[in-house]
Amino acid sequence: MQGQAQQQAYDRGITIFSPDGRLYQVEYAREAVKRGTASIGIRTADGVVLAADKRSRSPLMEPTSVEKIHKADDHIGIASAGHVADARQLIDYARRQTQVNRLRYGEQIGIETLTKEVTDYIQQYTQVGGARPFGVALLIGGMENGEPRLYETDPSGTPYEWKAVAIGAERRDLQDYLEENYVEGADLAGGVSLALETLASTDDEGLEPDGVGVGTVDAETGEFHRLSNEEIESYLTEHDLLASEEPTDDSEE
Amino acid sequence: MQGQAQQQAYDRGITIFSPDGRLYQVEYAREAVKRGTASIGIRTADGVVLAADKRSRSPLMEPTSVEKIHKADDHIGIASAGHVADARQLIDYARRQTQVNRLRYGEQIGIETLTKEVTDYIQQYTQVGGARPFGVALLIGGMENGEPRLYETDPSGTPYEWKAVAIGAERRDLQDYLEENYVEGADLAGGVSLALETLASTDDEGLEPDGVGVGTVDAETGEFHRLSNEEIESYLTEHDLLASEEPTDDSEE
Amino acid sequence: MQGQAQQQAYDRGITIFSPDGRLYQVEYAREAVKRGTASIGIRTADGVVLAADKRSRSPLMEPTSVEKIHKADDHIGIASAGHVADARQLIDYARRQTQVNRLRYGEQIGIETLTKEVTDYIQQYTQVGGARPFGVALLIGGMENGEPRLYETDPSGTPYEWKAVAIGAERRDLQDYLEENYVEGADLAGGVSLALETLASTDDEGLEPDGVGVGTVDAETGEFHRLSNEEIESYLTEHDLLASEEPTDDSEE
Amino acid sequence: MQGQAQQQAYDRGITIFSPDGRLYQVEYAREAVKRGTASIGIRTADGVVLAADKRSRSPLMEPTSVEKIHKADDHIGIASAGHVADARQLIDYARRQTQVNRLRYGEQIGIETLTKEVTDYIQQYTQVGGARPFGVALLIGGMENGEPRLYETDPSGTPYEWKAVAIGAERRDLQDYLEENYVEGADLAGGVSLALETLASTDDEGLEPDGVGVGTVDAETGEFHRLSNEEIESYLTEHDLLASEEPTDDSEE
Amino acid sequence: MQGQAQQQAYDRGITIFSPDGRLYQVEYAREAVKRGTASIGIRTADGVVLAADKRSRSPLMEPTSVEKIHKADDHIGIASAGHVADARQLIDYARRQTQVNRLRYGEQIGIETLTKEVTDYIQQYTQVGGARPFGVALLIGGMENGEPRLYETDPSGTPYEWKAVAIGAERRDLQDYLEENYVEGADLAGGVSLALETLASTDDEGLEPDGVGVGTVDAETGEFHRLSNEEIESYLTEHDLLASEEPTDDSEE
Amino acid sequence: MQGQAQQQAYDRGITIFSPDGRLYQVEYAREAVKRGTASIGIRTADGVVLAADKRSRSPLMEPTSVEKIHKADDHIGIASAGHVADARQLIDYARRQTQVNRLRYGEQIGIETLTKEVTDYIQQYTQVGGARPFGVALLIGGMENGEPRLYETDPSGTPYEWKAVAIGAERRDLQDYLEENYVEGADLAGGVSLALETLASTDDEGLEPDGVGVGTVDAETGEFHRLSNEEIESYLTEHDLLASEEPTDDSEE
Amino acid sequence: MQGQAQQQAYDRGITIFSPDGRLYQVEYAREAVKRGTASIGIRTADGVVLAADKRSRSPLMEPTSVEKIHKADDHIGIASAGHVADARQLIDYARRQTQVNRLRYGEQIGIETLTKEVTDYIQQYTQVGGARPFGVALLIGGMENGEPRLYETDPSGTPYEWKAVAIGAERRDLQDYLEENYVEGADLAGGVSLALETLASTDDEGLEPDGVGVGTVDAETGEFHRLSNEEIESYLTEHDLLASEEPTDDSEE
Repeated sequence: MQGQAQQQAYDRGITIFSPDGRLYQVEYAREAVKRGTASIGIRTADGVVLAADKRSRSPLMEPTSVEKIHKADDHIGIASAGHVADARQLIDYARRQTQVNRLRYGEQIGIETLTKEVTDYIQQYTQVGGARPFGVALLIGGMENGEPRLYETDPSGTPYEWKAVAIGAERRDLQDYLEENYVEGADLAGGVSLALETLASTDDEGLEPDGVGVGTVDAETGEFHRLSNEEIESYLTEHDLLASEEPTDDSEE
Repeated sequence: MQGQAQQQAYDRGITIFSPDGRLYQVEYAREAVKRGTASIGIRTADGVVLAADKRSRSPLMEPTSVEKIHKADDHIGIASAGHVADARQLIDYARRQTQVNRLRYGEQIGIETLTKEVTDYIQQYTQVGGARPFGVALLIGGMENGEPRLYETDPSGTPYEWKAVAIGAERRDLQDYLEENYVEGADLAGGVSLALETLASTDDEGLEPDGVGVGTVDAETGEFHRLSNEEIESYLTEHDLLASEEPTDDSEE
Repeated sequence: MQGQAQQQAYDRGITIFSPDGRLYQVEYAREAVKRGTASIGIRTADGVVLAADKRSRSPLMEPTSVEKIHKADDHIGIASAGHVADARQLIDYARRQTQVNRLRYGEQIGIETLTKEVTDYIQQYTQVGGARPFGVALLIGGMENGEPRLYETDPSGTPYEWKAVAIGAERRDLQDYLEENYVEGADLAGGVSLALETLASTDDEGLEPDGVGVGTVDAETGEFHRLSNEEIESYLTEHDLLASEEPTDDSEE
Repeated sequence: MQGQAQQQAYDRGITIFSPDGRLYQVEYAREAVKRGTASIGIRTADGVVLAADKRSRSPLMEPTSVEKIHKADDHIGIASAGHVADARQLIDYARRQTQVNRLRYGEQIGIETLTKEVTDYIQQYTQVGGARPFGVALLIGGMENGEPRLYETDPSGTPYEWKAVAIGAERRDLQDYLEENYVEGADLAGGVSLALETLASTDDEGLEPDGVGVGTVDAETGEFHRLSNEEIESYLTEHDLLASEEPTDDSEE
Repeated sequence: MQGQAQQQAYDRGITIFSPDGRLYQVEYAREAVKRGTASIGIRTADGVVLAADKRSRSPLMEPTSVEKIHKADDHIGIASAGHVADARQLIDYARRQTQVNRLRYGEQIGIETLTKEVTDYIQQYTQVGGARPFGVALLIGGMENGEPRLYETDPSGTPYEWKAVAIGAERRDLQDYLEENYVEGADLAGGVSLALETLASTDDEGLEPDGVGVGTVDAETGEFHRLSNEEIESYLTEHDLLASEEPTDDSEE
Repeated sequence: MQGQAQQQAYDRGITIFSPDGRLYQVEYAREAVKRGTASIGIRTADGVVLAADKRSRSPLMEPTSVEKIHKADDHIGIASAGHVADARQLIDYARRQTQVNRLRYGEQIGIETLTKEVTDYIQQYTQVGGARPFGVALLIGGMENGEPRLYETDPSGTPYEWKAVAIGAERRDLQDYLEENYVEGADLAGGVSLALETLASTDDEGLEPDGVGVGTVDAETGEFHRLSNEEIESYLTEHDLLASEEPTDDSEE
Repeated sequence: MQGQAQQQAYDRGITIFSPDGRLYQVEYAREAVKRGTASIGIRTADGVVLAADKRSRSPLMEPTSVEKIHKADDHIGIASAGHVADARQLIDYARRQTQVNRLRYGEQIGIETLTKEVTDYIQQYTQVGGARPFGVALLIGGMENGEPRLYETDPSGTPYEWKAVAIGAERRDLQDYLEENYVEGADLAGGVSLALETLASTDDEGLEPDGVGVGTVDAETGEFHRLSNEEIESYLTEHDLLASEEPTDDSEE
């Protein structure tokens, strides 16, 4: 009880520290990330894979309207998890940065550069009063100087570079799965397979092509590619991950 | 009791997260949507149908002054549910966006583009302090490149695309009715019929032409059309939905 | 007790939603409207009638200083109920809008257009922080394209169009009286009579010419006309509504 | 107890409504008016009379420094009651308005026009946050188109026109006295007499010339005139209102 | 207990009224004035006298650094009591006003004019949010058109004109002493004597020249003059007010 | 208990008065001064001495990085006590003022002038909201027109002139020591000796050259001079104040 | 209990003092520093060494993405501990200052100058409202006029110069280790060795090259150099600090 009252004292003040040096609003924003369905990022020798659970809450909802895999530039994809409307703001910000870079320097923005511009933007919302933090995490993946790169942004505004990472609901279990199964030097198809297996690992019912989004940035072409339902179904069939039942109705975006 | 006190702590701070990552003010704004009478959107093969319960609270009130079906542009209709004055603000914003698009690019705005401009605007009111969220949901329907499109905006600023959707009072029951009765490939008249049947499904007394608003965007003409009372009465008669009694007096807008 | 404490939590934050989706400050502003004496609006075939209870609180107060019937433009009258100083602000705003319209478009503003400009202005005070809502309701009546129109604005910023409507103290009883006695197609004199009968319906003592204000916008002339005390007395005598006693002393404006 | 706690909840938020539609800060500002000594305004056939109780709190204080009767323009006097420093602000504002009118239109400002400019200014302090209402009431009297006019402004920003009115301490008793004794058609001297009798009516000890301020705007000259101590003493003597004792020491301004 | 809690509710909101129409922050600022050592002002036939208790808290503090008697212009002196840093702000403001007047009109500012400019400035800090009132009272004395004038400003921003007045610690006792001993028509030396006697009246130990400040504005020269320690000692000796002991150590400025 | 609760009520509002006329935030800022190690200022016949306890908290910290004695201009030194980062802000402000004076008037700024510019700056932070007071006291010493001057600034923004003064930890004991031992007319070396003896008076372990800072402004040269460790050691040896042990580890800056 | 409640009262107000003169938000920001892994700075005769614990929380995280050692300019390195996103802001600020200095003065910025510009920036966030302090400490090291310099900045905005210093988790133990083992006059390699030994002193499992970052600014070249994993491994092997096990999984950044 006492702990609860104390905690309330700090989270009402948006941008202040608790006695143990924590920023509760940032930690609560991390909970908002966990309320969203999961996204997975995997770096392979041949490029980057982004995958997301995008099951819709009603059979009448258009599956394409659950946007979890976004194209930020020709060579960059972004997967998101958490508060959807916040994600849209950050992705718009990221897209503007890619365009500014192109106009100013005549070249594609680097993955790390883009990530840090986004995290600096996020950090402002954790220090200056009058607004709340962003309740969303992003995976930013793409090619930079011929190398595949994969970054995560979290609600505190910290950038992390990963070989493979999960965000959103059940992150811990998904990350454990990735740590056990990630293989250095796998090719892009192997990356897509691992991403789908990871998403399926916490769900006994299997996946439906409509309920999954997959994007890749291939090292060869250097271009972002969004997989078609047919491509996804082919992967799911190959790995015996295809759901036999219809999607559940009460999943939460 | 304890839960209630805790909840109060978070909803007083307009734009902050609760410990479980929720934004209470946005959730309360969703309750404001439910306090408004229902609106229905249905996408058919031949265009989009918008319908709304617009019973007035007094026989002396002009039925036309209960505005639930709005024309946003020649090719776009919007249905609303929730706080009426807030709806007017968003619809004005949407209309300005359609005009800006026409002036800037010399063409009609896309349905998805318009929806996302509206949801970005809504999102700002959920993150930056000094204002409350909009207590209204919209259904934005119209033709885009010859295809019928139907979107929902909610108080969090998330866009959803639907085949058929209900907002406002008794949304859950209405949506269940839609899921059971929606047929792919129906024509526009079938869509109008389904919309009226859905509205009538939660009301034993039947509907009156004055108490219902219906708008369509026909794929052929690509134009928004508001049905006359005669047209609506004809549909109601055909489907045996016409009320025999006078409207109830204490319904709430 | 618990309910009361909870309610206090929400009305202190000016522009936020309660858990059930209500805006308490707007609802309390509606109470401020009820604290003002009543005004009546009636649309007839020949024009619009506005009438108001304007009894003063002392025999030494000039009856003309209780302003409840206002001329907004040549063709528009406005009746108010509620917080007097707030009413003055909104009527000034309305007058500026009529002048702007005249200057910009060279023509008289429409009744619906004016009403919506006023309600949009009111809505701002319910969403953005740093101010309270307006504690006043208006009846805006006039001629538009040869048609009589009558609108109400409420503290939420919602516009309603009416055939006949009451605002202010005892609104519910007065509106019941109107619903029972309103006749479609009555002429302007019939409208004035009904308005005065309605005002008198909740007061056993009858009305005094000084304690009542009446304005009309005649379809023929299209002009706002404020009835003289003699004209009002003649109506009151005709309908046996004239008070025999002196006005009560403690009525509240 | 409960009522008190509830009341506290509303008066802390400067500009918000209570559940019964009241603005407590405005009502408390009215209490500030009652804490000031009384002022009286009387409209006669020959002009307007303003009178004020201006007893000082120490025999060493200069009586002239208790300013209750102010000249606003050649043809306008203002009497005040309540928070003295606030009164000074409003009177300065009124004086600037009279000068602006003179410069802009080349003529004297009307009494009603001036009053409404002042009340609009007062109203702003009751609706927009960041400041408190003015704790003062004014009586604005003067000649307009050959007619004597007398207005009151209160802390809500409402203008009232009066034949005779009292503000400040014991307002209710003084107003009762005025209602019983006011005679239509009295001349200016009769107005001064009634004003002094009214002030004396709540004080058994009589009045001293130093402790009373009187100003008139005569219909003939159209000019504000401040009565000298001799003039006041002559009136007091004539009406047997002259105090025989020295003024009390602890009266509050 | 209950009263205390209630009082706290109002003084936290800087600029709002209590239910009985008081501004607690202004009243508390008056307490800050009483925490300062006393100052005395006396108007005589030959000019104005300002005197102040300026005992320092340590024998190592320079007596001149306890500034209670200030020169505002050639013809105006100001004595202060209360929060020292606030006094410095107001006196700087007053000095700027005297210079502005000189530059703009080519003449010395009037005492009343200066006082009212200062009180208007003080009033702003009692009505607009975001700052606290000034915790200081001033006595402004000087010659205007050959007449000696003496004004007081208090934390509410009210100007008072006095024949003789005390501010600061033990104001009530000192004012009683002045009321009993003030003589109309005394000369300047008599005024200085009365001022010193008044200061000594609440202190059994007598005064030290170092612990007293005296300034005069002589009607003949029209110039502010600060008395030297020798002049003060001569007055103290003459009136048997000279302290035999060393000053106490713990007096508070 | 009750007193504590009451006290909390006032210190949360940054710039408001308590019922007894105190500004708690300013008083708490004075506590911040006492949390800093002591500084001493002494005015002698031949110039001004500033000395400070600057023991560092670790043998690995550079003694020079504990800055307590600052050069503000060629002829002015400043010693500080309290919140170190705040001291840096005020000293930067003081330095800018000396430069502005030099540029604008072509001459060195006076000690009193500089002090008052600094205290006016400090006062702003005690009256206007949105910031806290400065938690630091300064001793400003130097030559002005051939005279040594020594001033103190405190967190309220009050300037005091001293012959000898202590600020910071154990101020009261140090000031008592100064009052007992200060001799008028001592030379600069005598001043340095007294300053070091005073600092040593509350510390049984003696002083180390590294743990003490001393600056002087010599009347002859008129220049600020910072004593070298050798000079300080020589003084300490001469007066038998040299510590034989190593400095303690847990002293607080 | 009571103490806890009292403490809460102060940390909610961002920039205000507690009754004992402390700024709780600054102290809590110091706790945020302790939540970060440690960094070490050592000044040697031949240059400055910066070292940091940078173990990542997952084997799939790229070690290079845990940035604790930053290059601020050719001749300056910065190590950080605490809130990572805050560190990025301060380091960006520092980099801009180095560039501004280069552009404005055509030379490299001094280490002390840079440190003080950073601490002044930090201090602003502790005094002015509307933002929280920075939850990070920095070690700024480099060459200035041929001399190695090493500074620390803390969340209060105080600059300290050190011979050797530790920040972040277990600071006290690490600083004790440094105090016991620091040798004046060691060369750069000795400094690197001591830094690594210090980091290893609180960890029984030894260090991994990937989990440690080391940067040096060599007196000879005057350039910042980041040690490669091979260089680090060589040091670790030489001093028998190499971990035999894989890094623990749950360490916190």
